[in-house]
Amino acid sequence: MNGKAEQNAAHRVVIVGAGFGGLNAAESLAKSAAQITVIDRRNHHTFQPLLYQVATAGLSPGEIAAPIRSILGRHKNVEVLMAEVTEVDLERRVVQTADIEVPYDSLIVAAGASHAYFGHNEWEAFAPGLKTIEDALEIRRRILLAFELAERQASAGQHLEPLNFVVVGGGPTGVELAGTLAEICRHSLAGEFRVIDPAHARIHLIEGSPNVLPSYPPDLSRSALEQLQRLGVEVLTSSMVSKVEAGAIYIGETRMEAAVILWAAGVSASPLGKNLGLPTDRAGRVLVNPDLSIPNHPEVFVIGDLASLKDARGNLIPGVAQVAIQQGRFAARVIRREIDEQMKAGALDHKPSPVRPAFHYHDKGNLATIGRAAAVAEIGRFHISGYLAWLTWLFVHIFFLIGFRNRVLVLIQWASSYLTFDRGARLITGSTNLPGWRGLHRQDSEAEVRPQEISAAGHK
Amino acid sequence: MNGKAEQNAAHRVVIVGAGFGGLNAAESLAKSAAQITVIDRRNHHTFQPLLYQVATAGLSPGEIAAPIRSILGRHKNVEVLMAEVTEVDLERRVVQTADIEVPYDSLIVAAGASHAYFGHNEWEAFAPGLKTIEDALEIRRRILLAFELAERQASAGQHLEPLNFVVVGGGPTGVELAGTLAEICRHSLAGEFRVIDPAHARIHLIEGSPNVLPSYPPDLSRSALEQLQRLGVEVLTSSMVSKVEAGAIYIGETRMEAAVILWAAGVSASPLGKNLGLPTDRAGRVLVNPDLSIPNHPEVFVIGDLASLKDARGNLIPGVAQVAIQQGRFAARVIRREIDEQMKAGALDHKPSPVRPAFHYHDKGNLATIGRAAAVAEIGRFHISGYLAWLTWLFVHIFFLIGFRNRVLVLIQWASSYLTFDRGARLITGSTNLPGWRGLHRQDSEAEVRPQEISAAGHK
Repeated sequence: MNGKAEQNAAHRVVIVGAGFGGLNAAESLAKSAAQITVIDRRNHHTFQPLLYQVATAGLSPGEIAAPIRSILGRHKNVEVLMAEVTEVDLERRVVQTADIEVPYDSLIVAAGASHAYFGHNEWEAFAPGLKTIEDALEIRRRILLAFELAERQASAGQHLEPLNFVVVGGGPTGVELAGTLAEICRHSLAGEFRVIDPAHARIHLIEGSPNVLPSYPPDLSRSALEQLQRLGVEVLTSSMVSKVEAGAIYIGETRMEAAVILWAAGVSASPLGKNLGLPTDRAGRVLVNPDLSIPNHPEVFVIGDLASLKDARGNLIPGVAQVAIQQGRFAARVIRREIDEQMKAGALDHKPSPVRPAFHYHDKGNLATIGRAAAVAEIGRFHISGYLAWLTWLFVHIFFLIGFRNRVLVLIQWASSYLTFDRGARLITGSTNLPGWRGLHRQDSEAEVRPQEISAAGHK
Repeated sequence: MNGKAEQNAAHRVVIVGAGFGGLNAAESLAKSAAQITVIDRRNHHTFQPLLYQVATAGLSPGEIAAPIRSILGRHKNVEVLMAEVTEVDLERRVVQTADIEVPYDSLIVAAGASHAYFGHNEWEAFAPGLKTIEDALEIRRRILLAFELAERQASAGQHLEPLNFVVVGGGPTGVELAGTLAEICRHSLAGEFRVIDPAHARIHLIEGSPNVLPSYPPDLSRSALEQLQRLGVEVLTSSMVSKVEAGAIYIGETRMEAAVILWAAGVSASPLGKNLGLPTDRAGRVLVNPDLSIPNHPEVFVIGDLASLKDARGNLIPGVAQVAIQQGRFAARVIRREIDEQMKAGALDHKPSPVRPAFHYHDKGNLATIGRAAAVAEIGRFHISGYLAWLTWLFVHIFFLIGFRNRVLVLIQWASSYLTFDRGARLITGSTNLPGWRGLHRQDSEAEVRPQEISAAGHK
């Protein structure tokens, strides 16, 4: 119960979510006199830009995720709670979880976003998205099982069509997944199967708009397309998915058999945004004031993927890590300044200052990786493609990976993968039921679930 | 379908299980003219001696497990199939899986063992054992969640007794788990919680016989006991578990509350042993001939933890990695010699030689680790304890870790953990439902299980 007494006197900041936004807000507030509580429903921060590497067996979960406690542990005024926030009582100023309430003076909501299926949530069973470590392990399991199943059936003399892998969505995540899948099939698995040839597998990337990486400048979109094709990815642009079912996907009226379908298309904000009872945009993002606070509650900030804000030119500020980081620091700075002002004025109770600066996004550039030595980068006026862009991407991402040891380990893994084409994290974990093709896509209802299978409860 | 034609002419060896026994048999046969098929229901070999490190968040699964395909990939006459063998038809000489049949001329069954609950399988829900990567992740999840739950409740002002961790079984696995748990509580988590103090947690080790490490010489058993106590483990010997339930364990009539209970007590052979329809011992191990073959079927060998064999002095050969390795190589040697003899004799069909050598176990010594710089070692007449034994243990185990890159990574992890006390793999994955105390032990029947949760089917 140490520190509880003084805590009550200090200004209490609660941060919901320990993604890029929440963590940066906490780090920035840790230098202040405030008492900070970070609440996340996971015990770890996930470095999302490298999640596709876990999904494609290049890195282990422990290499791109670190316990929130150990990231923030050195700050004595930061408390970490693993809990799922169900509601915020704006009037009583408390955050509610299933079993406890946490009071706040200032609140930063950074609960992030998940994938969206354009109103077809039933597709998720057949086409998992990639937002969490669990998602990544599930995708890895499906990709690896597809090859195992094909080899087993071919070994018994059964005829098989080449494996089809389909990635839906040509944004950065879809491009990364498709490019890396191609690399796995052509190189990493080469020589390991006796009957099937993984290099015969086909990788399809489906994008609704006319270009992959549609948010990038046209020359880089074109370059990304060429690099994908060179890796062997078959790219279908201006193509809308009309239906997804077990083992097949429909593009318009055309049905395509697919061993594995991955979803990298839509984004939907955390339901916590809607729970605040405030106006949201179509994706469920909260419409925030220019200072990132919400209407009538200057003590509540919404940041990162959960916030909807336009820049001076009227463009929506994108849902990328850089924005979340800058918004987290911005909200922390506003709170810190106001605490300082009031401490100087001798007032104990915190009242938000009537005049606050507006948040401005400083775009430091955009990087998207495609595969081995393939990437595009937009840094100010410079547009780079290929090997140099890939090296830039590599070092930027390893530099920002949280935790020094992780950086060293990831560099070793990468150097080794680059030289040997090996992907060391090729473990199939989770279910030990060996499913047939249908089982790859949906839970077998006859599968025995033993009472001790705690992790069966709410896998995602 | 490359290689299928010549395969039919070659002597076909099927190996069931890619643990230490199966892998060594395959490696040893890879140099022969035989065509080898390795069947395992997982896609990876698990380096079981380091599994406790995954369970206690020191290593990631990818660091102690490697795809069987990549281990055996360089041998062109070795085929790997991921499948669960359900039965062996000794008359037709085929191995059966759910969807295919694999014929053999020689068969090596190395399906291993799992944990046993002395006839109380219902205890498994509350006290998981440690045999697979999934087991290790489940144990890790329970240990870490116990601390998170305690912090959350204490933070809300609820009174809590100190956490109790109970390890059942004082053999090498139980001793490793208890020692490492003590290290985590006293050091790794120190300073990361604001309300609870992990160092106040109590670690109990329950052993039925009068000594921990009962299979070791008395002086080393005593030394292990002292080292455990120095680490803060409370050891209860000559104590039998009478009942396990959610959150509590009974030693005789005495009830002990327990946040987490780990089972390291009994061993039960793979059900495949019984399926062969042959005499087995009480633990389900197949009684094999001195040459490791089974009665009336000299072409079928049973090795490793699934085999029951006595040495010249009438003692049961123990179920340890060294025995499995030596038996795998022995069975492979017998098969190779007989193939060679028959090729020389010009006979195409393989007939087992009537006179075969008997298997002898060469005991190279025994090592058990207890914790940081704590271990015992019995190497011939030498008995070592403490730091030197620990260093010996460390290098022997890293040396035998399969895969060079894994060795380097594990060494880096270890060096870093040793210097910083940090345990980098402290991720809670699996369920994102945040359970209460009961939820830590059993599946919440009201938890929503969404249809896409494939891995919910048969988690273990």
